[in-house]
Order: sequence, then C-alpha cells, then structure tokens
Amino acid sequence: MDLTFRDLNVILVQRELTDPISGEKLINDLTLAGNHVYMDEQLDAAARRVLFDLTGLHDIFLEQFYTTGDPDRLSKPMDQLWLKSINKNPSERVVSVCYYSLINSINITITKKDRVVLWVPVQDVKNQELAFDHAKILENALLALRNKLKHEPISFELLPEKFTLSQLQRLYEVVFNTEYDKRNFRKKINKMNYIIKLEEKQVGVSHKPATYFSFDRNIYEACKSEILNFSS
Amino acid sequence: MDLTFRDLNVILVQRELTDPISGEKLINDLTLAGNHVYMDEQLDAAARRVLFDLTGLHDIFLEQFYTTGDPDRLSKPMDQLWLKSINKNPSERVVSVCYYSLINSINITITKKDRVVLWVPVQDVKNQELAFDHAKILENALLALRNKLKHEPISFELLPEKFTLSQLQRLYEVVFNTEYDKRNFRKKINKMNYIIKLEEKQVGVSHKPATYFSFDRNIYEACKSEILNFSS
Repeated sequence: MDLTFRDLNVILVQRELTDPISGEKLINDLTLAGNHVYMDEQLDAAARRVLFDLTGLHDIFLEQFYTTGDPDRLSKPMDQLWLKSINKNPSERVVSVCYYSLINSINITITKKDRVVLWVPVQDVKNQELAFDHAKILENALLALRNKLKHEPISFELLPEKFTLSQLQRLYEVVFNTEYDKRNFRKKINKMNYIIKLEEKQVGVSHKPATYFSFDRNIYEACKSEILNFSS
Repeated sequence: MDLTFRDLNVILVQRELTDPISGEKLINDLTLAGNHVYMDEQLDAAARRVLFDLTGLHDIFLEQFYTTGDPDRLSKPMDQLWLKSINKNPSERVVSVCYYSLINSINITITKKDRVVLWVPVQDVKNQELAFDHAKILENALLALRNKLKHEPISFELLPEKFTLSQLQRLYEVVFNTEYDKRNFRKKINKMNYIIKLEEKQVGVSHKPATYFSFDRNIYEACKSEILNFSS
C-alpha cells in the first residue's frame, strides 16, 4: 500500500524537574533536540551526531538555517531554574547554531534516552510551552523549510522512488498546513519537467489506480542552473 | 544620468604586520569586515554595528546566511602569527555568525579606520589570499546572495525607484557574473507582474530613450504567498 503523509511532526525532548522534598513538579515542558559542540568537532558534525544519537540514522538531509544568540534567551525563570538544577551557569551566554532535517518517521525508532523523546505534530506545538527561545527557533525552521520546499525539491527526501501525485500533493499540504485544489496543483506539477510520468500504475487499490511518477535529479539540476528563475 | 552597475565589490580590510627589527613585511593580506559581539548585544545588532562603523549607514538590508566554526579555522601559520601579534590566544575556538548586506557603493564613504579598508571587485578576490577561512565565507555569501536574488527581488535594494530594464539586466549580470540575451531577459521580466511599466521615459540621453519601470512590493508579496512557486 502507498504511504500517506498525515502530519508534519517535530522531535521534542521532555524536560522535567521535581522538588525532591515536596514531590511537586517544578518543570514539565519540552525542548528541541540539541547538544553542545565538542571542542574538536565541526558544527555540521555536531548536528549529525545529535541526529544520529536520536535516530540511529546517517547521511540524512540536514541544513543549517539560523543562529540564535540573544543575550536574554536563558532569562525565563523556568529556564534559570532548570540550568541551576543541572549545574549550568544560568548567566552564561549560549549561542545555538540551528539545523533542520527531514525524515520519514516510519523509517526510524527513536533511540532510548534518559529523557523522554516524542514526535509532536507541529500544529500542536503552539499550544505547548517550549523551553528557552525554542518556539522561535521552530518557527524559523518552518519558514526555512517552506522556503526551501518552494524552490527546491527536497520533498523527494520523504517520498518513495515512485510516488503518485496525490502523495506529492498531500506532502505539500502537510508542510504548508493548507489544502490545494487538485486541478491547480497538477497544473503546477505539469510545468516541472523533472517530475517524470512512469508507465506504471498502482495495483491492488480499491479506487481507480493512479499513475506513478518519479523525480529526475539530472533534469532538475539542469533547470536549476538556468538563471533568473525567480518565483513568478 | 542613470546609474550603471559595473562591478560587484566586497569590502575588505587590510591586515599588515611588519617585523619591528628587520622592517620585513611578515603579513600583508585581506580579511572580511567583522568584529566581536559584545556580551549584552544581539547578533543582528552586532552585524548592524560593524556595518555602521564602516559606512555610517543605518537600516540597511542585512541577512544572516551562515555560521562557521571549524576547529581548524585559525590554524594557518599566518593567522597564528597575526593572532599572537594582537595578543589573542591562537588556540581558542572562534565561531563566526556571518551576514551579507547589499549597498550601492555610490551612497557611502568608508569611515576612516586604523586599518585600510577597500572595495574590491568580487571577481578579483580569488587571486588574493584572504585570512582565516574568509575565502570560503565569501564564496558562501555569493551563493546565498545569488540564491536570494533568484527567488526574491532584493535587487531593488540597489536600484533607484525608477529604473530601466537595461539597468536591471546589468545588475543581474554583475551579480551572476554572466551575460544575458536581451530578448530572453525581457521575456522573463515580462512574466513578473510586480515589475510595473511606467508612462515615463529617459530624457537627455544620446540613445533612444528607454522606458522606466518600478517595483510594486504589494503585488510581489501577494505573488510570494502563492504556494508552490518553485523555480521551473
């Protein structure tokens, strides 16, 4: 059966702190996944390490999109409390170099950690309190991802080699959190000569079998090098 | 008279070190402009400060495009020598958050500094030795600028409010270091409904007067929000 994309999810890590005497839960919120860079480690290598530690995956699309270093980003009382509890100096300045990746959650099992790690639908995160300035980082990641997806076919990182146009449309709908008119969507896709119609249709489906398509990276690279292809 | 864009230049700062005894020039090369971030300063504010200190300009288009922090980026012998000469620890790790800006050099006078500051045509920089990993940073800046220019009309930061299509074409030729066929270029421009033909032509020119055009930000923003406008 063909995959359907249901949600755009983000990996979040639970942050919990309990008062050892009263047993009261002092902190119970979520953070983005991250870690410190080793002194002899490249920034990209650190990002790959964080992703590998969580997912066990190598060679994943990973893009640096933003660096944040506001002087007041550790200043929320909850964050100050957390930093003290893990013996970090809460008056230090922390600069975070941020990366996003795009993975099909079906391919991975999150590695067990000392803290709880969850996939959370991006649409639901707004309602949660994220630690530090992670809500802003997530917002910037989404903007960067959407911008990239408008201009470059990174969606093919998530699609199987042969895909139907419904799968492709659903993927865009999930990332952009919207719905497209099927006819207009296909008109747009038709203009992309790097999406190749195959001589093969779905089998064993209860509806009218859809045609498979594939992505031709060579044709795409040739188009891309053409100058002045702004959005219009 | 209408402006013509001749070159894409980058601001570089001369780095010189002379042996106090022999008078021999030990270092004579160039660096990108930059400075350290103050402890209580936002990253964007530091970038604006560096630009203001050099040019006296406020409110300039400025984009963070890349952060570099390779462990070996200070390891070249010349850079080690330089760092020692200015009493910096050459075994420290330095992370640089990099920004590019786009300014019309005609609008500014570079503020006098204790070091020589120059506009250098980007095409000529290859032949120069840049300090640290600044050649790589410049290369990344160019890629980011070109990518941005393909998808967003930041060229209008450089153009006067009314411009001719020759001016626009020349600007793209300068940034992409190439030449376009006039007819093809105009065909592309015609498709951009946010470039508005005005009822006004050049006056006092020796050639056939060209029509002026202007950029409509509102129409552009409306197009931009349309989904799925990849390059095609």
